[in-house]
Amino acid sequence: MSLYPERPTPPDGGLSRMHLTGINALSDGDLIFLLKLAQYYRALVRDDLDIPLRLKGRTQVNLFFENSTRTNCSFELAGKKLGADIIVVPVAASSVHKGEELQDTTQTLAAMGADAMVVRNKEHDTAEFVSSALGKANIPCAVINAGEGTRSHPTQALLDAATMLESLGRTPEEGLKGITVAICGDVRHSRVAGSNAELLPRLGAEVRFVGPEQLHPAANQYSHVERYTSLKEGLAGCDFVMALRMQMERMESGYGMTNEEYHATFGLTHETLGFAALTAKVMHPGPMNRGIEISGALADDRSRSLILDQVAHGVTTRMAVLDALLTEQE
Amino acid sequence: MSLYPERPTPPDGGLSRMHLTGINALSDGDLIFLLKLAQYYRALVRDDLDIPLRLKGRTQVNLFFENSTRTNCSFELAGKKLGADIIVVPVAASSVHKGEELQDTTQTLAAMGADAMVVRNKEHDTAEFVSSALGKANIPCAVINAGEGTRSHPTQALLDAATMLESLGRTPEEGLKGITVAICGDVRHSRVAGSNAELLPRLGAEVRFVGPEQLHPAANQYSHVERYTSLKEGLAGCDFVMALRMQMERMESGYGMTNEEYHATFGLTHETLGFAALTAKVMHPGPMNRGIEISGALADDRSRSLILDQVAHGVTTRMAVLDALLTEQE
Amino acid sequence: MSLYPERPTPPDGGLSRMHLTGINALSDGDLIFLLKLAQYYRALVRDDLDIPLRLKGRTQVNLFFENSTRTNCSFELAGKKLGADIIVVPVAASSVHKGEELQDTTQTLAAMGADAMVVRNKEHDTAEFVSSALGKANIPCAVINAGEGTRSHPTQALLDAATMLESLGRTPEEGLKGITVAICGDVRHSRVAGSNAELLPRLGAEVRFVGPEQLHPAANQYSHVERYTSLKEGLAGCDFVMALRMQMERMESGYGMTNEEYHATFGLTHETLGFAALTAKVMHPGPMNRGIEISGALADDRSRSLILDQVAHGVTTRMAVLDALLTEQE
Repeated sequence: MSLYPERPTPPDGGLSRMHLTGINALSDGDLIFLLKLAQYYRALVRDDLDIPLRLKGRTQVNLFFENSTRTNCSFELAGKKLGADIIVVPVAASSVHKGEELQDTTQTLAAMGADAMVVRNKEHDTAEFVSSALGKANIPCAVINAGEGTRSHPTQALLDAATMLESLGRTPEEGLKGITVAICGDVRHSRVAGSNAELLPRLGAEVRFVGPEQLHPAANQYSHVERYTSLKEGLAGCDFVMALRMQMERMESGYGMTNEEYHATFGLTHETLGFAALTAKVMHPGPMNRGIEISGALADDRSRSLILDQVAHGVTTRMAVLDALLTEQE
Repeated sequence: MSLYPERPTPPDGGLSRMHLTGINALSDGDLIFLLKLAQYYRALVRDDLDIPLRLKGRTQVNLFFENSTRTNCSFELAGKKLGADIIVVPVAASSVHKGEELQDTTQTLAAMGADAMVVRNKEHDTAEFVSSALGKANIPCAVINAGEGTRSHPTQALLDAATMLESLGRTPEEGLKGITVAICGDVRHSRVAGSNAELLPRLGAEVRFVGPEQLHPAANQYSHVERYTSLKEGLAGCDFVMALRMQMERMESGYGMTNEEYHATFGLTHETLGFAALTAKVMHPGPMNRGIEISGALADDRSRSLILDQVAHGVTTRMAVLDALLTEQE
Repeated sequence: MSLYPERPTPPDGGLSRMHLTGINALSDGDLIFLLKLAQYYRALVRDDLDIPLRLKGRTQVNLFFENSTRTNCSFELAGKKLGADIIVVPVAASSVHKGEELQDTTQTLAAMGADAMVVRNKEHDTAEFVSSALGKANIPCAVINAGEGTRSHPTQALLDAATMLESLGRTPEEGLKGITVAICGDVRHSRVAGSNAELLPRLGAEVRFVGPEQLHPAANQYSHVERYTSLKEGLAGCDFVMALRMQMERMESGYGMTNEEYHATFGLTHETLGFAALTAKVMHPGPMNRGIEISGALADDRSRSLILDQVAHGVTTRMAVLDALLTEQE
């Protein structure tokens, strides 16, 4: 018997698309396969087993038009662990990147021989735009959305799901049936909330948004998600409580209360986590504002906090995404 | 019979120098060998064949005192595909780099064990200066000019020649005899024009500069190149029409006309390309100013435009340069 | 007989700690082993022998909160030569990095799977703080001090010792008995002086600080080091004379004399080196201010200057540190 966990079988005919532009662009088969592959890499890394260098000789380009040390490093590490050559392109985060300039930049990098392009940008629908620009120039290169606009960050949602499944001891097929997840705080400006609101219900979970009225998204968005403006009511019965980073940099003039007021009414602490299920775990996509959306004591309590587990799943989930897109196309 | 194209034979005794400081420092034998090696790597990459890791265990340092994402990434990718370790040195593009400071920086990096140093700088004759500084300290390290001053960018000229040869289906020995190349626009501030004006005639081509009087170089430079101030006359009979980037950042107070006026009189479009030979192709070293020196429609028309081919040749030509300098010294 | 020098045997039970936080945290056994391992790698690199890829599959993170191209590249190259995957984290050198923010940043990077974290920071005791933060989160990752505060830069001291031993043709066990080292100039703001003042006496050397009164450290620091305010007296009989970089950026309002006055009274030149032993060698950690603490002519005279040797030893000594910490723990 092999010491190794077995690599999962891809869906018949491979993935439905060669890009990861958003959660809703994935078929159910894609979704289950990506999560199984994420569990496979998680097992290899956790048990310190040799990792097959499936991307040896392939080139990955990280093109981050917004600074994000954490996501950039996570993708870089994921690619390196699979043996890819990585180019981290330094770009001026200050200027706007869209239209013809974005087309020329991405076509040029792809024409240099990139097999995968990991893109983060302030503009909505960047990954879709880039994949279309590369298609028009007939350059085969997988485009991966590493965060865009205010609604979409699909690999974060996938790694969150992988973290929850491991915490529950479940397979992707078993999913999150019967599980309730509260997403708390600055939902309005959160890509993480957007992609999780798309992904978690497809795995069977009930998702709730919890926070002050003014931080909820516009009324016509995410109509399938229940909204709460009371932390106590919103957390009742929840299995996972996800704090979001207060995105001060995406607000023009604050959010109608001080950080102290926010922490007093919506901050996650050992005490307020008591509103949720007895075994509830807290999560946070990072970077944290300690003392605002979450207390340092709770964040650091690894019996209740999955925050560092999310970071570890970040790398292995992105390994799964890169591997699947580059080697499992039909 | 091998599936692989055959690696070309180096000139007797190896390359004439261990540095690439400029086109004129290459012997005819060097030149032909570099272009043959570029064709060899182009064939390997295009057909997705395994690339011999000839630079495994060797260290390449990219030292760009001027920002150039495109050239920097191209050299990085070239080195990685050959198995080299690459250090991309972050430098303050704002400060001046010359004299003793430049000597100390480059001697230090070379003393760390660099086998190749790829340098880009605002100052003229930087590569020559650096190669001399390393020689004085007796440190063996190949220096490669990745653009300097306003006249020299030898790897760009080599990749342009490689692109033309492929487009014509010719070998480097057959060269560019009978071929006419128009270099259009801001010749005065263009390193690309400078190195092409040195290289292409050595391969047998006739080179012309085409643009408004004030963008031509000083009268005593490039006396072997015919100058035209009419696009129609300049393009007549040309096989390749190369647009240059309008180098606004190297001009103190504009260039005497608006961008709209320039585009109307000298812009390359499907219409104005009609002045050239029936099968003429358009080229551009990038990054493009669409709507100024070239129309977006022409740039994107891959039946007429070699622009993305130039990008792909950029990587394989630089592979050839790195490989030749590091492994074919006598 | 093998062509290879033999890898030295680690101390019984491995290194005493898995971190390199400072010279004084190393046991005598650690110290000797690190220097022997540094000599081993120096021999492999100098003779161009194959280097065993002992860090293959391991991940090294360079986290430099202060710019230092030289140290950053040296560690990057050291890790790459041993086969490690390296992530160079871009950080805003301007902001302060301490406390919870430093804890979160380092725990996150370590949770991604870093095996070694190389940290440089303005704050004192950073490496100790980070190693404790990782310990609290139960993440196994070696922390290496790459310069912190105004007193500590242990790998610089180790490479200086390795350079002196090689220059003398001695083994680490023979050490620096009978050797006198003058450390000259801006001792007050120098990490290099601090770590050398800890290390060199443990190897048997006599260390002296030489410079104007106001650049000596506070009276209660380094009480075991003799102080001189006359260059002539301070250098008398010295075997190694180490110039320090005048750290203008760490001074609020100059140092009480002009650079010209400093050079005239304390600058190292061929002439003033004559105060020292006949065979004395000059050293400098770099980057140099030529014409202030050292003359260009002396710096460039490789019969008297070990400055470029220090750079080469920098890489091989850091290879030894990385290798020892990651593979020789008990």
